[in-house]
Amino acid sequence: MKDLTIGIDIGGTNTKFGIVDREGNVLHQGNIPTTQFEDFHDYFNAMVEAIRKGISELPSSSRLVGIGVGAANGNYYTGNIERATNLKWKGVLPLARLFNEAFDVPCILTNDANAAAVGEMIYGNAKNMKDFVVITLGTGLGSGFVCGGVLLNGKHGIAGEVGHTSVNPNGRYCNCGKRGCLETYVSATGIKRTVYKLLADHLEPSELRGISFEDLNTKMISEAANRGDVVAKEAFEYTGRILGMKLAETVVHTDPEAIFLFGGLSMAGDLIFKPTIRHMEANLMPLFRGKVKVLPSAMQNQAAPILGASSLVWDYLDKLHAKAELA
Amino acid sequence: MKDLTIGIDIGGTNTKFGIVDREGNVLHQGNIPTTQFEDFHDYFNAMVEAIRKGISELPSSSRLVGIGVGAANGNYYTGNIERATNLKWKGVLPLARLFNEAFDVPCILTNDANAAAVGEMIYGNAKNMKDFVVITLGTGLGSGFVCGGVLLNGKHGIAGEVGHTSVNPNGRYCNCGKRGCLETYVSATGIKRTVYKLLADHLEPSELRGISFEDLNTKMISEAANRGDVVAKEAFEYTGRILGMKLAETVVHTDPEAIFLFGGLSMAGDLIFKPTIRHMEANLMPLFRGKVKVLPSAMQNQAAPILGASSLVWDYLDKLHAKAELA
Repeated sequence: MKDLTIGIDIGGTNTKFGIVDREGNVLHQGNIPTTQFEDFHDYFNAMVEAIRKGISELPSSSRLVGIGVGAANGNYYTGNIERATNLKWKGVLPLARLFNEAFDVPCILTNDANAAAVGEMIYGNAKNMKDFVVITLGTGLGSGFVCGGVLLNGKHGIAGEVGHTSVNPNGRYCNCGKRGCLETYVSATGIKRTVYKLLADHLEPSELRGISFEDLNTKMISEAANRGDVVAKEAFEYTGRILGMKLAETVVHTDPEAIFLFGGLSMAGDLIFKPTIRHMEANLMPLFRGKVKVLPSAMQNQAAPILGASSLVWDYLDKLHAKAELA
Repeated sequence: MKDLTIGIDIGGTNTKFGIVDREGNVLHQGNIPTTQFEDFHDYFNAMVEAIRKGISELPSSSRLVGIGVGAANGNYYTGNIERATNLKWKGVLPLARLFNEAFDVPCILTNDANAAAVGEMIYGNAKNMKDFVVITLGTGLGSGFVCGGVLLNGKHGIAGEVGHTSVNPNGRYCNCGKRGCLETYVSATGIKRTVYKLLADHLEPSELRGISFEDLNTKMISEAANRGDVVAKEAFEYTGRILGMKLAETVVHTDPEAIFLFGGLSMAGDLIFKPTIRHMEANLMPLFRGKVKVLPSAMQNQAAPILGASSLVWDYLDKLHAKAELA
């Protein structure tokens, strides 16, 4: 019997799922357009049907042992998605309970950044680590903390919102309702805003002057920087400076072994890592200097969110077995 | 047989110890002047002798089950005090091993703020909490985190240095070598610095103008504020504003149920709590607003550091028994 899990990544536009083994091989992958369903139960039923179809195509020697779900505003304790701003269904969506009823296996749900952190521990670069942080750099900045080998959930299941620490209380407007949050500076959107600020303030010629805000993306900024574009280079330097300064504060909270950067912005390599590390070290309390690694995530591919979600099940089962072995 | 622990608080000037029962009653208390000993081993031997004398005076129906030590720069993992700036003995002091050898019981060592956090959980206001933070406001600002019922130690045993997050990178000089650390604003020393800054900047008459920096203490500032002194009141407002802003950042890291304030500055009551709570809420990511309590520590007495240290043993034994019960 080969144990398999389902990993589900619920995004505002698309819901991706995969059937995954313990080694992180995705044996089957599927996609449901999230936006297409007006009614949540129609959406849920379409997911169940697609997953059942996927399972039916597997060899009969395999066995489903659990379902993991990563979603913005997913709450680990309740198993609900609560007040997600990126979904059209309002209120509380009891996904873990519904999946558990539909498939009769445990369903673990948490937010996408927490799923990424557990994914890094189960499949990625944090395999032998017990204390680390994953920073996800997408439209916003998410974070997941593993402390002493355990995902940090907090009292209300919403720990790890480092994207909403403050860079400048009078700074850029944030979707959360505040101003100056870290994610308004450090994220795919944040670096775009920085490019536009630099283009507004300075006179330097830049190939980015010809691109609209909507069209501009991290890859373009990174390619321009590699071609020597002064504005693009300065945008990375500025982004890394702010990220490094704020990571220095995160480090003194939880004393991690490493911080992993995940997502588009982290793919820019040295452009983002060098200033981030330099400014983190410069701003760190001396006691911590030279102790904390800043590393790329090993999960930099299309299947990462699916793997992250599926890893929640393996982590859950590992801890269950560890308890059972004691008994 | 009544189980008893020794709690030891190693301060730069004095080392206090107590023999403590599970309910937090201090059955015997002693004091060793830390500064009096040029040689670390003389100091350690004097402690052992004083503790042995204390034990000899107890009823024979009691049993020593462990020793807990709280000390600045105490490392939980190694059991060593490492490079403490407040002690004259340099290098690594292997206290946990030495106590274990001397008394043949487990010895748990950690830094004083971590000991305060465990003390709050075992004897204080956090008895039924699994996720909380203790902020100790003394000469500096210490912090201890309990997450999921477990003390957060971090990779290197130095988690919880919130006193060295940044308020202003060009701000006040800090003992750690950086500038603008939280503890240079929020601590007994921090509020004195703020009073002197206000006296320098403003023209208002204040009873504090007659007191030297060396003589000034938190109690004087608090009494002046209660008498309506404008500068003293403004100093508390400013201190609470900075603490509230920074606690809003701590909250989004670990999502605690409550934050406890401990130490002299926290004894000022509403003077410090009101602005701290107001500014924490105003600066919090909306998702967290109204969820996190800011409360006074229940450990506000002379024996608190001893109780905190002794609680390390009860916590250690509780977790050991919980494991044994599973087995």
